[in-house]
Amino acid sequence: MTLQLGADEALLLLTALRRDLPAAALSTGARAAPYATDRSGSHPDGVPLAVVHAANADHVRTTLRHAHALRVPVVPRGAGTGLSGGANAGVGTVVLDLSRMNRILDLDPHDQIAVVEPGVITAELDRAAGEFGLRYAPDPASAAISTVGGNIATNAGGLRCAKYGVTRDAVLGLDAVLADGTPIRTGRRTVKGVTGYDLTALLTGSEGTLGVITTATVRLRPVPEATATVAAYFDTFAEGAEAMAELTAARLEPSMAELLDGPVLGAVDEAQGTGLRSRGGALLLLQCDGRSAAAEAEAELAVRLLRDRATSVETTSDPVEAERLLAARRLALPSLERLGRVLIEDIAVPRSQLAAAVREITAIAERHDVRIFTFAHAADGNLHPILVLDPASPDISNAAWQAAGDIFTAALRLGGTLTGEHGVGTLKRRWLADELGPEQHALQQRIKTAFDPHHILNPGKAL
Amino acid sequence: MTLQLGADEALLLLTALRRDLPAAALSTGARAAPYATDRSGSHPDGVPLAVVHAANADHVRTTLRHAHALRVPVVPRGAGTGLSGGANAGVGTVVLDLSRMNRILDLDPHDQIAVVEPGVITAELDRAAGEFGLRYAPDPASAAISTVGGNIATNAGGLRCAKYGVTRDAVLGLDAVLADGTPIRTGRRTVKGVTGYDLTALLTGSEGTLGVITTATVRLRPVPEATATVAAYFDTFAEGAEAMAELTAARLEPSMAELLDGPVLGAVDEAQGTGLRSRGGALLLLQCDGRSAAAEAEAELAVRLLRDRATSVETTSDPVEAERLLAARRLALPSLERLGRVLIEDIAVPRSQLAAAVREITAIAERHDVRIFTFAHAADGNLHPILVLDPASPDISNAAWQAAGDIFTAALRLGGTLTGEHGVGTLKRRWLADELGPEQHALQQRIKTAFDPHHILNPGKAL
Repeated sequence: MTLQLGADEALLLLTALRRDLPAAALSTGARAAPYATDRSGSHPDGVPLAVVHAANADHVRTTLRHAHALRVPVVPRGAGTGLSGGANAGVGTVVLDLSRMNRILDLDPHDQIAVVEPGVITAELDRAAGEFGLRYAPDPASAAISTVGGNIATNAGGLRCAKYGVTRDAVLGLDAVLADGTPIRTGRRTVKGVTGYDLTALLTGSEGTLGVITTATVRLRPVPEATATVAAYFDTFAEGAEAMAELTAARLEPSMAELLDGPVLGAVDEAQGTGLRSRGGALLLLQCDGRSAAAEAEAELAVRLLRDRATSVETTSDPVEAERLLAARRLALPSLERLGRVLIEDIAVPRSQLAAAVREITAIAERHDVRIFTFAHAADGNLHPILVLDPASPDISNAAWQAAGDIFTAALRLGGTLTGEHGVGTLKRRWLADELGPEQHALQQRIKTAFDPHHILNPGKAL
Repeated sequence: MTLQLGADEALLLLTALRRDLPAAALSTGARAAPYATDRSGSHPDGVPLAVVHAANADHVRTTLRHAHALRVPVVPRGAGTGLSGGANAGVGTVVLDLSRMNRILDLDPHDQIAVVEPGVITAELDRAAGEFGLRYAPDPASAAISTVGGNIATNAGGLRCAKYGVTRDAVLGLDAVLADGTPIRTGRRTVKGVTGYDLTALLTGSEGTLGVITTATVRLRPVPEATATVAAYFDTFAEGAEAMAELTAARLEPSMAELLDGPVLGAVDEAQGTGLRSRGGALLLLQCDGRSAAAEAEAELAVRLLRDRATSVETTSDPVEAERLLAARRLALPSLERLGRVLIEDIAVPRSQLAAAVREITAIAERHDVRIFTFAHAADGNLHPILVLDPASPDISNAAWQAAGDIFTAALRLGGTLTGEHGVGTLKRRWLADELGPEQHALQQRIKTAFDPHHILNPGKAL
């Protein structure tokens, strides 16, 4: 459902934007080209008509008002670090670049909230909160390069969300601009509130298809007093997954639980010269946090439970040593990117189905003769099977699409979802209706229309 | 915006329901009368046309299909414990009573989720989870008598939501029936997932105006190893509020923080023969939980911080002693109900504004010569100012409405909200647009229409 854009509308829109926006806020031609893609590895059909570098909410309103009147599609964009094609912008679209709206407007340590523009880098908000002993809990792996607005658009997860929740759980209120340029303010500065429908939650994860966020009020939380780190190696990924299930059954609530399979360890070794693969076929990295005594007690319990199944277990409460243990996780994706073109999947399954999901993925890789490397946010049941494809081939092969499709089907069969935290974007749209069912899919389209009657906002994404 | 119902439609609907539902599922006349009101103290204009006691989702679908075709308003109802008139059902309405759909369909300790019908009593779900060392975290004060479905409809809060979140944070997925009888399934059994718009969150807190919940998949969490309880008395409520702000600034995260004012303590004394009021003008009840060492460390820190401001502080980790300390909070509302007819307000303000809110409430009580008693979920900034009115008067006096209006205005001025956890219902509708603003209000109406084109679901409530 791509809007058909005539040359007249394009010309009229450019004329209006040139008239109503500062010259520095508009890029066209070759200067617009870098804004055509995100980090999904997929490519749209060309270069966008123009990029608006919004400096404030008025620029957003002006852009949308004109685009709405002329029925020109608009693609909102943060830092372009998305992994599902949600910010891809093809021919005839206007990119609304929000990365220059990057001020922290308020950071209130008494109310433990921050009010930020959408282009603030997530890690920078976390750092600013840290000056008051607070933190912004959502921590997608991209936190150092992605924006708070982009994280809200995809309802990003991260490493510590098993204990501290996903982005939605941290967002209290939003200023957003609807497709026709109308500003709304949802939610509030309070931690509780139930007046009206929860449009804050509805906008969160809507991938830029319902409105454009211009300010977000987010909740901050105290930095835990202590964090203890545990690293355990296993013979197989399935054994690691079963060990994780045992920790959950023992009612442990780790703040982080990352599980890497043998091929990922091998890829890290190859890229970094480490010797992880020789220590086991899977690595489970756990963190427990809280008051010092609690973090240590939880880590000790974890070690006791893991000892029988693991080939080795080590633990530390020293931050430098912890960073060394965590390096394997941080280096996993960059190491895989050296091996070929990566297609990053993002299924989530009920926590007890983690081992079953891994068995399915292994069988799918063999069936389609595709290389799949897997790491997981194990306490959430959120797996990232990463297909590594031939870098020489410009298109994603049929075998890769079939493998991806089989992974999604397996996730749904296990009671799970297509996407735990990356979003649907363009890459997962063909399987969307399978998960939602036709009735809910139709309802979601009606909700879309209530926000954006001409469907100008990020058409062809998410829904 | 009440639907005008003709006698023909009423007769046609009753005929259809009698034909398509078992006789035991339908009450009319005097047997329908007890289903006209909730616990808000407000009354609709008469008795509903009929009550459908749904035993399963098919009964819900059948009822809605006919009501939709005939444009008859339907009022979904759990246990009728709501405090804002959300389940009030007047002349010409059909009540859809879900209290008989009260089975726990699944309780999976490995995935730490439960799948329940909407009529399950909240405390019973919590008790069932307790057999596996788990709990259902949302704990509204009504947990022993209210239902999970009703809690979801209002996005109920409770005592421990400062640390563990509100109902929305515990709901992973829903089966719901739309106004025309179409069933949808939202969300999933996984703790994370971002496919499509978050209709689970949108239905949560929608007060029965968007759909009727027939199954809920909810998250369970481990019961903390230990809980420590602290009780501190202060000369004034404002001093208690300031002490709470100091605890928050020290980055303490209590699992419960209830603050009662002097008049409430006096009412409890009068009803129960206790001597609380003689000990101070305000009582702060705190609980800290987690691993044993952590709960104790947090409680010790709280005592250290409170000691300078409080007139007395006591602490315990003994459950029986804790129950004694908590009795004052549990008995507060029943004690007030002995003094007159209560109108329970539910504002929330940014946490730092708690003391300011109390000052406003005191001034409002004096200005309108209305008796107002206040207790608060202090860590959330959620206050319950309770207007105690002359029990002899059938209507709420103008002075009481004016006082309520001034309380809402003060909450909004302080950056807060009309309702932290009870919902808008009928009682707060006249102030709703002030909080939402006209643009968001119009958008919410369009969303309502996307779910319920003829506006048959709980008309005149929430929006």
